[in-house]
Amino acid sequence: MPLIPTHEWDCLWLNVHLATMKGESYGEIRDAAIAIKDKKIAWLGAQSDLPDTVELKRKCAQILNGKGLWVTPGLIDCHTHIVYAGNRSHEFEARLNGASYEDIAQAGGGILSTVNATRDATFDELLNASLPRIKRLLAEGVTTLEIKSGYGLTIESEANILRVARHIDAHYPVNVRTTFLGAHAIPPEYKGRADDYITFICEDMLPALHAEGLVDAVDAFCERIGFSAAQTERVFKAATQLGLPVKLHAEQLSNQEGAALVARYKGLSADHLEYLSDDGIRAMAEQDVTAVLLPGAYYFLRETQLPPIQALRDAGVSIAVATDCNPGTSPMTSILLAMNMACTLFKLTPQEALAGVTINAAKALGMQDQVGSLEVGKAADFTFWDIDRPADLAYAMGQNACVQVIKTGLQIVE
Amino acid sequence: MPLIPTHEWDCLWLNVHLATMKGESYGEIRDAAIAIKDKKIAWLGAQSDLPDTVELKRKCAQILNGKGLWVTPGLIDCHTHIVYAGNRSHEFEARLNGASYEDIAQAGGGILSTVNATRDATFDELLNASLPRIKRLLAEGVTTLEIKSGYGLTIESEANILRVARHIDAHYPVNVRTTFLGAHAIPPEYKGRADDYITFICEDMLPALHAEGLVDAVDAFCERIGFSAAQTERVFKAATQLGLPVKLHAEQLSNQEGAALVARYKGLSADHLEYLSDDGIRAMAEQDVTAVLLPGAYYFLRETQLPPIQALRDAGVSIAVATDCNPGTSPMTSILLAMNMACTLFKLTPQEALAGVTINAAKALGMQDQVGSLEVGKAADFTFWDIDRPADLAYAMGQNACVQVIKTGLQIVE
Ligand SMILES: [Zn+2]
Ligand SMILES: [Zn+2]
Repeated sequence: MPLIPTHEWDCLWLNVHLATMKGESYGEIRDAAIAIKDKKIAWLGAQSDLPDTVELKRKCAQILNGKGLWVTPGLIDCHTHIVYAGNRSHEFEARLNGASYEDIAQAGGGILSTVNATRDATFDELLNASLPRIKRLLAEGVTTLEIKSGYGLTIESEANILRVARHIDAHYPVNVRTTFLGAHAIPPEYKGRADDYITFICEDMLPALHAEGLVDAVDAFCERIGFSAAQTERVFKAATQLGLPVKLHAEQLSNQEGAALVARYKGLSADHLEYLSDDGIRAMAEQDVTAVLLPGAYYFLRETQLPPIQALRDAGVSIAVATDCNPGTSPMTSILLAMNMACTLFKLTPQEALAGVTINAAKALGMQDQVGSLEVGKAADFTFWDIDRPADLAYAMGQNACVQVIKTGLQIVE
Repeated sequence: MPLIPTHEWDCLWLNVHLATMKGESYGEIRDAAIAIKDKKIAWLGAQSDLPDTVELKRKCAQILNGKGLWVTPGLIDCHTHIVYAGNRSHEFEARLNGASYEDIAQAGGGILSTVNATRDATFDELLNASLPRIKRLLAEGVTTLEIKSGYGLTIESEANILRVARHIDAHYPVNVRTTFLGAHAIPPEYKGRADDYITFICEDMLPALHAEGLVDAVDAFCERIGFSAAQTERVFKAATQLGLPVKLHAEQLSNQEGAALVARYKGLSADHLEYLSDDGIRAMAEQDVTAVLLPGAYYFLRETQLPPIQALRDAGVSIAVATDCNPGTSPMTSILLAMNMACTLFKLTPQEALAGVTINAAKALGMQDQVGSLEVGKAADFTFWDIDRPADLAYAMGQNACVQVIKTGLQIVE
């Protein structure tokens, strides 16, 4: 005999169009409605399938008018290095004024300048440097965000980055997934001793950070200018022993057979993939490893080698798209721009681009059962857009049509 | 014996850094101040050159703290087609799903779909379709905006576009310069009769629109798929007879010697210029014609032929940068993104990119005596940015650091 009658639904939005991202053609349902209960999606479908008004009013604690807006799943940026200190615009400028990468490295630039600035930053400094970038991303309807470490390269500094990442949800309504990327670059104190650094990662760093609960997944930079496949595999072994899933910066500048390595460890994703081989594609398809495309880095570096999109499609590999937000190769805080670049530069269709920042991005984070599509039982994370059709999201450049975000059932922006 | 004492300055901002865009290295003045009087810049310089506090308080009606922000001239987008109706995201999507340009044209797509939608739009419909795009552009600190006609192609519909353009400043604080682009495409009713359409432009359309005060400059699309150099010259002659300056969509897809034609008519600018010849560069340099680069269209069309940047520099041609905002080839409402593309794709330096959307954009509109740099006597149009240095503006992708805009002395955004 409850004093307050419990409603079947906490909130119902009428008069919306849904891009559920389940099924063909955006999983489109026009003239639809969507209801939530206990922070989850409780019902969705054609408005004409709803019960009559009297029954609805009994059923719902609140009924809102969606005013013809489109609703998509909350967007997911599944690959970022968004927590860092320092600013590398002066390198961008120096390069355009004719400085070589060597000049810049000699002047203390490159990734180590970000490492130095990040090591010097306190928790609050690092948080305050990162929040404006995160705010900008979230303004475009992002509700789930992956954040990698990798600019600390000591236990204390990597922990600082990951603690900041874990703290973001105290400031903004967003799910953050953390990825430990200790094998991002060789820190100065290990210069010429990459194997020793890998040992330190496997035996000290990763166990310590994992013990503090800071690590959701483990990543590495497998490249001629990064770590070898053998070194990467040592990191993957250490991760696997701790029960942590792996992912990899793979085949960005050359084919290191990194994607196949991820597949061997049944990893979540292989990311970049410009130089991905047929063997790599086969391995990814067999183990259902998601391909994460990062067109911002391709654009910013003026790369010309395209990832093998058609072969990935043909093999049935899930394709995600992310910003790769980082100060050196993709200073981008717009997931919508990443979608446009995925279409314009990589020739993804607008539907593939939207799947790439929703359901397939969820897969790249191992969260496809909780988020990434509008389905009953999934989290009530969704974004309202003032657009004519879903393709508008990837088509427009610099136009943010996001009107409102619902994050775990709470209304964020009106 | 005035009752209200008149102050020498209406407002003074202390504690700012200025990128005046006059002189070398952004015309940088750090730890500076800027004062305005009667909607114009009355003083600027190092803060240490200001008189003492007592004297300052006497001198200024208002003194504000700029809090260490950077101040640039209000940005200028000197080439847009931002007033149009309809939405061509479905073409973008169809093309990425494999449709050819012919398929799209047969399905009623291409520029004529925008012409049809724009012809069908009333003044209010066209205004309401355009305002959100303009709002987005202005949010990035734009204070002067060029708007072209060219989607009407009848007197009445071209007039409608230009009247909407003239009306923008009733909604937003911005200078609008209108450009008549009747020679944008051949309207369906003149199919196969391009010369007749040019006659109609020269004898009827342009005189009528000019008589209504709707035209600040005259433009054409000189290209194999547009109008010939001879047809363009007829338009230029008609414009010149009315005392109107000319500019041109020149050498975008092929070299039509359009830039040299603009120079012969002492025009304001030649725009696009991917296929510009050495002769064209020489002619532009001799007549001081500004080169307007449109990297958004280059990007969106996946062009590979770069405009001859170094040769333009060597010849001393002024280089401007604009969005080219239009639904077919550059659906872009971000001048900051245009700056980033100018650097990333065309290898302009960040300083050249900023000059391209300030002083050189002013030149492309014939307004360099009124706007485009921070100089005493010019309009009090400037933008405050929360950045570390001016290069940040071109470096970041998707981050709008605009904090406040002053338009003809009035504060717009706080
Ligand atoms: Zn990355
Ligand atoms: Zn144009």
